[in-house]
Amino acid sequence: MVSAPANEHYYLGIDGGGSKCKASVADVEGRVLGSALAGPANPLHGVEQTLHSIESAARRALKDAGLPETVLNRLVVGAGLAGVNLPSLYKVISDWPHPFASLHLTTDLRIACLGAHHRDDGAVIVTGTGSCGYVRTDGKDHLIGGHGFPYGDQGSGAWMGLEAIKAVLLASDDLGPDTVLTESIADLLQARGLGIVERMSGRASSEYAKLAPLVFSAAESGDPVALRILTDGAAYISAMARKLLAYQPARLALIGGMAERLIPWLEPEVAKALSVPMGPPEDGALLFARKQHELAQTA
Amino acid sequence: MVSAPANEHYYLGIDGGGSKCKASVADVEGRVLGSALAGPANPLHGVEQTLHSIESAARRALKDAGLPETVLNRLVVGAGLAGVNLPSLYKVISDWPHPFASLHLTTDLRIACLGAHHRDDGAVIVTGTGSCGYVRTDGKDHLIGGHGFPYGDQGSGAWMGLEAIKAVLLASDDLGPDTVLTESIADLLQARGLGIVERMSGRASSEYAKLAPLVFSAAESGDPVALRILTDGAAYISAMARKLLAYQPARLALIGGMAERLIPWLEPEVAKALSVPMGPPEDGALLFARKQHELAQTA
Repeated sequence: MVSAPANEHYYLGIDGGGSKCKASVADVEGRVLGSALAGPANPLHGVEQTLHSIESAARRALKDAGLPETVLNRLVVGAGLAGVNLPSLYKVISDWPHPFASLHLTTDLRIACLGAHHRDDGAVIVTGTGSCGYVRTDGKDHLIGGHGFPYGDQGSGAWMGLEAIKAVLLASDDLGPDTVLTESIADLLQARGLGIVERMSGRASSEYAKLAPLVFSAAESGDPVALRILTDGAAYISAMARKLLAYQPARLALIGGMAERLIPWLEPEVAKALSVPMGPPEDGALLFARKQHELAQTA
Repeated sequence: MVSAPANEHYYLGIDGGGSKCKASVADVEGRVLGSALAGPANPLHGVEQTLHSIESAARRALKDAGLPETVLNRLVVGAGLAGVNLPSLYKVISDWPHPFASLHLTTDLRIACLGAHHRDDGAVIVTGTGSCGYVRTDGKDHLIGGHGFPYGDQGSGAWMGLEAIKAVLLASDDLGPDTVLTESIADLLQARGLGIVERMSGRASSEYAKLAPLVFSAAESGDPVALRILTDGAAYISAMARKLLAYQPARLALIGGMAERLIPWLEPEVAKALSVPMGPPEDGALLFARKQHELAQTA
């Protein structure tokens, strides 16, 4: 265990998500000393659980860094959480009597963007289970999409999975074209026709997103149905990118689980305009903590 | 209260549904003596509740007919219920120690078809909250569609509502064409953009179906987005009708809450091939009870 210099503060970056909470601890110079994971931290799915996960992740990150637990109250925390753009949710979490030195709260999108660009005035498109566009210019946030399953999030993994299921069910009735997705989905789900319905009925969007790799594979093998899904999804992401580029961000990055496979399907102009992400959202959370701390010092 | 001829049996028709259970009681000649409603009776949503609703509806129908409760054990019951095409569900309900003289079980689709045609070898397309096609030929059932929300049931009320929400959210991001649905949905839901998401997230398909009349109105006023939704939905129903007509049923009827407004949007050939429904599903349930009873007598 390293000795913690008395009175010195540390930064903690929190990237909260629906399945897990990531924490990174850094020294005053920004050097990452340790990191850890804890349980779900999406306040839209439960505030209590979120606060519990944040504190657990913080304690584990200190342990990973070899710092004593007593450092907890010297942590300057930056946390990116879904849903805190809703004033009511922002207030509930701000009112938390946390054990830290300070807690600076922002959205998951803002820390993702900060992490991807290491600067404030960037833009990101997140394409994972869902899809969403975000740009920050002149200190203001702009959001595009991210309306959720099943009515939004075109081009996301869950959307691709839903479109694939729709196409396979239409084909099973001979009311839509045959597709190789019928066989690949039958292999993955061990189900056909009404069996697919029994398997997927009421499932979370993340279950649909598991089918997205099958859509990529089918499209890459030339299947017209999968090609149509991927072309439609990519057209939406390209259109979203053009909207974001109109704000003239310093950089634009495509991030999330679908990003890498999706890029070849985007409009060439859009693909060319993309920058490689510099770091993950945890980086952004640390940067946010540091920036807010410095602002507080100079205020 | 009329006196019930000793030893004579009565017929009871049960039309079970997700929101209510309808019962009609008829004499041996088929004359309807009374009818009643009770609670939900969709075994896919709960077998206990279904059995309870069937018995309640039966007792109430007897009361409505002015028959004593003691007639319960002289009722020959025909019941049409969703999901009993699944052998496991059929068995659970068949094993019920019911208080009737006999219980004959079939699907909601079969009694709807019997009710619509007063004969066995017909076809129906049900378009209400969901959509489904059914035809019976040579004593065999054939189903098309009916895969459910959100991946199937094209042309249904819930599907129209979902497509309307998708279009309005796309328009709210300026990633899709403007539509008068934006205003009519804002009026109905008292919500726009992310407010629509908060309002609809996780809602049942029946909540989406409530938006379908707005799609019809918008299309009738020439809105291109609503026209596209209705044209796509009607094309699916027309294609389903052609599949059903290929079985050469004696008659084909379009039934359910969307049927009347949808007919003008179908292919003219399909619209011309439709017959007017003769009666409601309860009629079909009574006919089914009678037919099964006669079969049992001659066996």
